[in-house]
Amino acid sequence: MSGRNNGEDGPRVRFSDPQIEMAHGAGGKATRRLIEGLIVPLLHNSVLARMEDAAILSVGDQQIALTADAFVVSPICFPGGSIGELAVNGTVNDLAVVGARPTALLGTLIVEAGMPGDVLRAVIEAMARAAEAAGVAIVGGDTKVVEHGKADGLYITTAGVGLVDARLKLGAGRVAVGDQVILSGPIGDHGITILLARGELDLEADLKSDTRSVWPFVEALAGAVPQGIKWMRDPTRGGVASSLNELAREVRLGIVLSEEAIPLRAEVRGACEILGLDPLHIANEGQFLAVVAPEATAAALSALHAVPGGEGAVVIGEVREQPARGVLSRSSYGGTRMVDMLVGDPLPRIC
Amino acid sequence: MSGRNNGEDGPRVRFSDPQIEMAHGAGGKATRRLIEGLIVPLLHNSVLARMEDAAILSVGDQQIALTADAFVVSPICFPGGSIGELAVNGTVNDLAVVGARPTALLGTLIVEAGMPGDVLRAVIEAMARAAEAAGVAIVGGDTKVVEHGKADGLYITTAGVGLVDARLKLGAGRVAVGDQVILSGPIGDHGITILLARGELDLEADLKSDTRSVWPFVEALAGAVPQGIKWMRDPTRGGVASSLNELAREVRLGIVLSEEAIPLRAEVRGACEILGLDPLHIANEGQFLAVVAPEATAAALSALHAVPGGEGAVVIGEVREQPARGVLSRSSYGGTRMVDMLVGDPLPRIC
Repeated sequence: MSGRNNGEDGPRVRFSDPQIEMAHGAGGKATRRLIEGLIVPLLHNSVLARMEDAAILSVGDQQIALTADAFVVSPICFPGGSIGELAVNGTVNDLAVVGARPTALLGTLIVEAGMPGDVLRAVIEAMARAAEAAGVAIVGGDTKVVEHGKADGLYITTAGVGLVDARLKLGAGRVAVGDQVILSGPIGDHGITILLARGELDLEADLKSDTRSVWPFVEALAGAVPQGIKWMRDPTRGGVASSLNELAREVRLGIVLSEEAIPLRAEVRGACEILGLDPLHIANEGQFLAVVAPEATAAALSALHAVPGGEGAVVIGEVREQPARGVLSRSSYGGTRMVDMLVGDPLPRIC
Repeated sequence: MSGRNNGEDGPRVRFSDPQIEMAHGAGGKATRRLIEGLIVPLLHNSVLARMEDAAILSVGDQQIALTADAFVVSPICFPGGSIGELAVNGTVNDLAVVGARPTALLGTLIVEAGMPGDVLRAVIEAMARAAEAAGVAIVGGDTKVVEHGKADGLYITTAGVGLVDARLKLGAGRVAVGDQVILSGPIGDHGITILLARGELDLEADLKSDTRSVWPFVEALAGAVPQGIKWMRDPTRGGVASSLNELAREVRLGIVLSEEAIPLRAEVRGACEILGLDPLHIANEGQFLAVVAPEATAAALSALHAVPGGEGAVVIGEVREQPARGVLSRSSYGGTRMVDMLVGDPLPRIC
């Protein structure tokens, strides 16, 4: 139930699609229609209606964050990782971007009968390694087996629990004109890696998934500029474009990106050009976006650059009055283009 | 990752099966081999090694219970409910039997492309109704879509969070010789209902799933005999036989059942006789087992009988020294039989 609310006075989204299509799972407009038009109205409650990456609940005098994720990536193993790392890091990151230190995970396996025992072993080993690296315990789960042909090897679903870092005061409501948009590093590595790993395209590139925990970066920000960080998101399905469009809609402001500032590997740029894809729509599994008060931006970047793997963090844009509820990308040559949410599903089962 | 630990000095279970078979998901011996022989050793941590239905974590001065479940029941809709009710109640019940009041759920959908929109709507409506009846909020989740043929309509996975009722002190370590085994009501309704709903057998019966929240019963016990309740379990996959065998192994004592005391509808008895199934192996989705101190048994039964739907709660057996680590069933005619865990998977995808 990813996807976000579009503000109480925004247009009502209705779901009347006759059947579920791949696009409903892609993280773009069809997903939004499914979530906001069907699931949220039926499961109405105030926590769900906020539609953050994780729900926040009070337990005694502490706040805990809860999140759930499903992983159906195909193929199961790819350069840089497997569905196992993805399941752990994806869950950890959903907690991290709401400002919660990841504490415990539950991992549930839906296995297709006939799955080789050693592949399952390798995936579980990958989960264990990723959990250790991220400092979380896998405390439980469930395992179901379905007949051969009724799943595609292995699906993993997870739930994660984290403790909200009391230093941080995150909330889209704090986002204001002039705030800076920070991106942690190059985009598109994960999505393009998966696409190439399928071997259906006559393309090769020395590229691997960026799957990793982003909690160390969030922790560094919480230490350096706790009040300056206003909003965070990990741009997975639907990419940077979908995450920022959701923010723009919610806060009814515009986001203006500097096209050339967005870090992008040559391999990803090249693959996107050949395939007609916008890198801003491609999924990432180890990057995050942060909206930061202008006066905190320098300190935030310094803190990120000091964390191994955070050297590439940069400002990619700014919050403006216009285009209200939209995202605009501006090139240094003076050209501009509107950056829309992902439509359809050009990259199915990317995570 | 259901299944339980078999005690530190029990025989080590090893997993060397070349591939995953349906039996690995059935909740019996093969599931135990997969969980204890592969998953737990790889994800080693003290919380997981306890292998209760839910993990218990401390948050400040409170204890929270966490659980995860996957639901792959086929067919999706059946007499008495659907995968929607099952997902909510199954999760709620895993929390209830560790003594935790269910508080929040996360629900994750893996949908096969081509799923009719109105079927999905009906399932989500069922989740909403069941959550309201159980007094829990569905606070988040995730939705993924896989290609037609890569799932079987819809799989739901859940995570649940509950607050441990401080009045209860549950733990297999407290179970002692002389304790009484209480069962909440008739067994086998859910499993046999699903089997008949598949329409593959030339059998009909006026039967429906027993899916419901068991928290009202646990709450009644917590109020009436908080110290007297020592252990609880909801006997789902693998049935009463597997739950009690797991307890017997863990506490290294025997459990002796009175065959005639076990409540069983005539329809379930008849179907089991025709199909050669032991009702003690059939899954339940709205019943629970409780081990109670002898002096608390009468008060526990009174408390249960006062809750609507609890009128059928009865003592079905007793904890004895022998058969150590085993379960014995005794009939009033003097016959006895050992009741083993479920072997193989006579009833696949029952939940």
